Amino acid sequence: MPEPMSLTDREAEALDAQWRALNYLSACQLYLRANPLLREPLRPEHIKPRLLGHWGTCPGLTLVHTHLNRLISERGQRAMGVWGPGHGAAAVLAGAWLDGSYQELRPDVQRDGAGMERLFADFSQPGGVPSHTSPSVPGSIQEGGELGYALAHAYGAAFDNPDLLVCAVVGDGEAETGPLATSWHANKFLDPVHDGAVLPVLHLNGYKIANPTVLARLPEDELGALMRGYGYEPLFVTAEQDTSPLEAHRALAAAFDRALERIGAIQRAARSGAVEAAGRPHWPMVVLRTPKGWSGPRELDGEPVEGTWRSHQVPLPGVRDDPERLRQLEEWLRSYRPEELFDQDGRPRPEVLECVPEGDLRLGAVPEANGGRLLRELPLPPLESCAVPVERPGAGAHEPTRALGELLRGLLAATEDRRDFRLFGPDETDSNHLSAVYAASDRGWQAGLLGTDEHLGRHGRVLEVLSEHLCQGWLEGYVLTGRNGLFASYEAFANLVASMAAQHVKWVHSAREVSWRRPVAALNYVLTSHAWRQDHNGFSHQDPGFIDHVLSKSPDVVRVYLPPDTNTLLCVADHALRTRDTVNVVVAGKHPCFDWLDLDQARAHCARGVGVWGWAGTERGDGPDVVLACAGDVPTQETLAAASLLREWLPQLAVRVVNVVDIARLMSPTEHPHGLSDAEFDTVFTRDRPVIFAYHGYPWLVHRLTYSRAVHGQLAVRGYRESGSTTTPFDMVVRNGMDRYHLVMDVIDRTPGLGARAASVRQRAADLRERHREYVLAHGADMPEVTDWRWPGR
Amino acid sequence: MPEPMSLTDREAEALDAQWRALNYLSACQLYLRANPLLREPLRPEHIKPRLLGHWGTCPGLTLVHTHLNRLISERGQRAMGVWGPGHGAAAVLAGAWLDGSYQELRPDVQRDGAGMERLFADFSQPGGVPSHTSPSVPGSIQEGGELGYALAHAYGAAFDNPDLLVCAVVGDGEAETGPLATSWHANKFLDPVHDGAVLPVLHLNGYKIANPTVLARLPEDELGALMRGYGYEPLFVTAEQDTSPLEAHRALAAAFDRALERIGAIQRAARSGAVEAAGRPHWPMVVLRTPKGWSGPRELDGEPVEGTWRSHQVPLPGVRDDPERLRQLEEWLRSYRPEELFDQDGRPRPEVLECVPEGDLRLGAVPEANGGRLLRELPLPPLESCAVPVERPGAGAHEPTRALGELLRGLLAATEDRRDFRLFGPDETDSNHLSAVYAASDRGWQAGLLGTDEHLGRHGRVLEVLSEHLCQGWLEGYVLTGRNGLFASYEAFANLVASMAAQHVKWVHSAREVSWRRPVAALNYVLTSHAWRQDHNGFSHQDPGFIDHVLSKSPDVVRVYLPPDTNTLLCVADHALRTRDTVNVVVAGKHPCFDWLDLDQARAHCARGVGVWGWAGTERGDGPDVVLACAGDVPTQETLAAASLLREWLPQLAVRVVNVVDIARLMSPTEHPHGLSDAEFDTVFTRDRPVIFAYHGYPWLVHRLTYSRAVHGQLAVRGYRESGSTTTPFDMVVRNGMDRYHLVMDVIDRTPGLGARAASVRQRAADLRERHREYVLAHGADMPEVTDWRWPGR
Repeated sequence: MPEPMSLTDREAEALDAQWRALNYLSACQLYLRANPLLREPLRPEHIKPRLLGHWGTCPGLTLVHTHLNRLISERGQRAMGVWGPGHGAAAVLAGAWLDGSYQELRPDVQRDGAGMERLFADFSQPGGVPSHTSPSVPGSIQEGGELGYALAHAYGAAFDNPDLLVCAVVGDGEAETGPLATSWHANKFLDPVHDGAVLPVLHLNGYKIANPTVLARLPEDELGALMRGYGYEPLFVTAEQDTSPLEAHRALAAAFDRALERIGAIQRAARSGAVEAAGRPHWPMVVLRTPKGWSGPRELDGEPVEGTWRSHQVPLPGVRDDPERLRQLEEWLRSYRPEELFDQDGRPRPEVLECVPEGDLRLGAVPEANGGRLLRELPLPPLESCAVPVERPGAGAHEPTRALGELLRGLLAATEDRRDFRLFGPDETDSNHLSAVYAASDRGWQAGLLGTDEHLGRHGRVLEVLSEHLCQGWLEGYVLTGRNGLFASYEAFANLVASMAAQHVKWVHSAREVSWRRPVAALNYVLTSHAWRQDHNGFSHQDPGFIDHVLSKSPDVVRVYLPPDTNTLLCVADHALRTRDTVNVVVAGKHPCFDWLDLDQARAHCARGVGVWGWAGTERGDGPDVVLACAGDVPTQETLAAASLLREWLPQLAVRVVNVVDIARLMSPTEHPHGLSDAEFDTVFTRDRPVIFAYHGYPWLVHRLTYSRAVHGQLAVRGYRESGSTTTPFDMVVRNGMDRYHLVMDVIDRTPGLGARAASVRQRAADLRERHREYVLAHGADMPEVTDWRWPGR
Repeated sequence: MPEPMSLTDREAEALDAQWRALNYLSACQLYLRANPLLREPLRPEHIKPRLLGHWGTCPGLTLVHTHLNRLISERGQRAMGVWGPGHGAAAVLAGAWLDGSYQELRPDVQRDGAGMERLFADFSQPGGVPSHTSPSVPGSIQEGGELGYALAHAYGAAFDNPDLLVCAVVGDGEAETGPLATSWHANKFLDPVHDGAVLPVLHLNGYKIANPTVLARLPEDELGALMRGYGYEPLFVTAEQDTSPLEAHRALAAAFDRALERIGAIQRAARSGAVEAAGRPHWPMVVLRTPKGWSGPRELDGEPVEGTWRSHQVPLPGVRDDPERLRQLEEWLRSYRPEELFDQDGRPRPEVLECVPEGDLRLGAVPEANGGRLLRELPLPPLESCAVPVERPGAGAHEPTRALGELLRGLLAATEDRRDFRLFGPDETDSNHLSAVYAASDRGWQAGLLGTDEHLGRHGRVLEVLSEHLCQGWLEGYVLTGRNGLFASYEAFANLVASMAAQHVKWVHSAREVSWRRPVAALNYVLTSHAWRQDHNGFSHQDPGFIDHVLSKSPDVVRVYLPPDTNTLLCVADHALRTRDTVNVVVAGKHPCFDWLDLDQARAHCARGVGVWGWAGTERGDGPDVVLACAGDVPTQETLAAASLLREWLPQLAVRVVNVVDIARLMSPTEHPHGLSDAEFDTVFTRDRPVIFAYHGYPWLVHRLTYSRAVHGQLAVRGYRESGSTTTPFDMVVRNGMDRYHLVMDVIDRTPGLGARAASVRQRAADLRERHREYVLAHGADMPEVTDWRWPGR
């Protein structure tokens, strides 16, 4: 590998030519719909009617792009970019156009004058390419809208990609977000043996939309201390407004060279086994300070533009109507000397392409940024290896997540060499009863190790950090680069990443519409320690709203499963891990839960997603008097308890028990691909019988999913009604009106013609309910008749 | 003020007595329901049936509590605690019991043996006090469940409280979260002249639930660099397992003394005007390292407990059933020598109380932690000062948020001396067209200032940082300590703090049930730059789901308003700023929006929350044929455009136009206090006419709110259907089926008996819709007939 050395003048000039070309291409995307090469003086009709885009960040992005291209082409280094300031999509598109990857994916946008015109006209226009990086931008794995995830995505991309360099450009705006602020610590989880390298470039251009940025206004020693405190070796590259670009190229090239040498040294030491002695490596990072909108218009109407927030979006507005501004624009664009950069046909001249890589090494063509190209089927262990035996429904009980832990253990073992599956979680793998996985993998950890540590190691593929944002960002980066994973979380705290999840759904939904994007693995959540079983915690830990949130997003992507027992959880997890381009939310308990279905029954039930549990009901062939429906483990238990009370107390009543695993089955097929047709729905739920639905989450979700069904007017839903505290499990269902006694009362209240017997049964249920409340307050524990309850069989 | 000096032996011993007392009280809360003073040997029946609580963090919290008490009582320093590891509620409760504040608020729990027994029995039991800090814990302003907000809350509490010291205990688990990681930078926004001081105590006990913590495993120089990089002067206090507590007391006392001197010096310099020259102050912070569960059981079954994750929750489980463990528990509890700490009646002995403050200085009694005690009515300017003139509906247009900016400017000016109102936002005040506020207040900023900066200053009360988490956390801290504020955000990015908002709702809901908590000001959101007008951005910026999220939380707290124009926004904002114990979400546009109502009409409309706009419809006295309902500014515009097309095209059709401002009016009064009765609802919406509802957000929300209404089966809702991109405003409504033409088609499709004329009208609407799509693709802009459209009046 070359030593860091000064560039020759010729090298610096070639880099500068590339940078100018990228800046020209970026700026023109904001403005031009014709005359792309400025062959004639600019006229208003060459200008787009609506000027949209973000110029301010572009020159920094193009600078990094140029220098990454140099590293790649000089060293054959495999690399990808994660473009934090993705609202500067014009810059990333410029790179893909210039390296020729764009024309391969978009044959209508060739690397010539006509293609250039199309590139410009398409940008940020209705029906065209969005103004932020999106799936339609080659070489990108993140939307450039919601800031904060660049570094987490970069680490996710680098895990288990030992030869890859992931360069993450972090804007100084983004750096103020919480998720980004904690992402710097991801270096304590990067295994230098099995993982690739992340090279963060903190790009200080000084301003956000209208404010200075915090980090840009720190003294350099303070910022340096911060980066060293985060565990990096910072390399500072600073360009002021008057710095000559050639000088900046020299400085940045030297910094990148130094960074690559340091990375190489770290990796060689680790891979030769020497690092264990040397301690955790301090990876390099670059602090790149350049003026915002560098090389753009210096001033407008006497106010400074370059180097200030005024260059954030369109630095010269109104150019179509103001000849003086049109002249300024032309002067600006011509300052890049396009005639030196592009030939007669608009093709880049050789000097411009001198340091631009070719083939799959191009940043626009790197396979990891279109991860589906690399995705392989997972070697999932047979479910028989972890299923629980079920002689008859309700005879036994298991902890569902413990069996899931066995499944994941098998999967981690089977992928030990492939290393394309990981488990992520915020310090809860053990608490969530998934600790079987430690038999196949340690928890990955690069910070200090102590003799008392258990299941912590340098090469583990279970990652735990108390930041749901990091877990989510890592998993997104891991999945989008062609691998597989699962995020297990306390149910309530999935809400911390609700917004990230929504952005990922948007990404996947949009990617499905981009012809060249290959499907990626599902992003899988297992939400456990759920609202009903927060025995050791309180109100803050009780929130089932993540389901509602996810179900409001693109139905082609989102799936929600509520397996009622252990074997159904295994079937659902097995399915989820095989799906593509989806976001799967699986809600499952960690506490002992009755086993209702054996493995074959579970498979059949999960395949249907919803089904009548004939063994649990009391129908006699002519349809039910009432339907007891349930979704979720605790609601299923209460529903079966209610069914067994009704069988005992009102044996004449024909009760149907319906269990729902795949909640989207409730929706109309016009609203979700999993939706049951009205005919199927009516067959299961009837058109006109009372339906008492015990649901895991907020009850109105079921109303919103079923509002167009015939039976909707007959539907009473019980669920979590935001009543919680530190209390017993049964008291939780009582507080929220979802307990067995309340369900019995609902049945009696809603089923007409039950007669006098029913009234006394209702009173009995009401009394038991009341007695329970008193018992709990007196004893601080649930009544034995609920804790010891068993499904009586038939 | 005293110099930092060594404690005398007596002082150290008094502190240690206090610490032991607090530890004893904490540990006993986890275990005992009787025999509180260990007057007899422990027997199983003294032990609670369910052992719940978190011991591991308690000894650290009690240590900080003890030393804060010393500072307060020695110096008369006003201080409050923000207890990040709030799952250690037992420790905070112990403090409030010991300082006598608890018995004042809970007369049933006196500071004696009987009260002690009640304190223990009540803890973490059904119907008792939750195991996490919650509103029932005196001196606390945050739930100890969802981690990450301690430091942001602390800064929010310190703003505009110049004499207050806010000590924020940050657990090393919490420190891994994103929100906490960026909260350190809040020191760039703390004005040493007008604000109080924040003293962060980073408590490294080394472990989370089951993992080591990142920060505890860093070398000390790296952690020190991190803290200096964050802009602090760290003071390290380290106690190992074998450190004598007296030594630890001496070290921590010295660190706290040093910190207070430094804080005093910073404040004196700033308040004398000397700081402007000296530059941004580097505030002190303390890194306190102690073993997890320090002073608790050393071992269990041969495994280390103290100093490891095994002491996280209940360090000795199963004590009721295992005599040996019961013996271990007794030995542990007796190790605090309770007989030296409490007298015969269970009252704390004088030595224990020597450094415990009195009156409002007590941490359990500090008025700021029960902020409603300090809350004053806001001097809101008369709305006439910022209302817009409206000659007739739709004649003019204004930018709603610009007028709101005028209202806020007036409020900021009127509170210039009181300093009890602040505006928070993530770098968007300008972008959200609220910049009028700068006439009354700068943006507060303590980092570097440049000559080119505008509206940035040391003493501003508008705070902008690119972290919604910080904005939210600051506002929560500010409001909970008795002040008022507003958070203005891009609509989509409110989702970033969905989880924080839910926790705040839980806090307020629970606080309403605590007799001694006084009502606090509303937490107000203005969500603008909303889903329909993301002209400059794309899909990532289009998400109206925050409304759905908030409406799923406690209805006694949450309110959502969708003002259709400028004057209604002013009325809604004025109302929101006067409310107590609520979370108000106001969604409003920043782009020019037709003025429909003058100020008086707006007041009347907002007072009702929903109303028939007779001037917009074509009823002739015998009820409508169809109802066009709308909520939100863009839906209102499209609805009125549809109404005017129908008037022109189908003049015989009796159309009623209904506008909804307060979305909870749609709900049943059993589900939300603002819900209309069925009779009122039917009067407005009819029981049986088709209702075409154009709604700002996800359409199913309206279904879920109205599912029990008579007219529900006749309801068709149009809204945002997750179809977005960078495109024109009208194309957005077309893509989502909420455009005027689509609404006309809906009316025709759903109103029976319209005859042949209607079919041709429908075709005309469909043609116009199609023509628009083509126009947009060809011109990159909306058709003039929609951009130039004006309400024709009557």
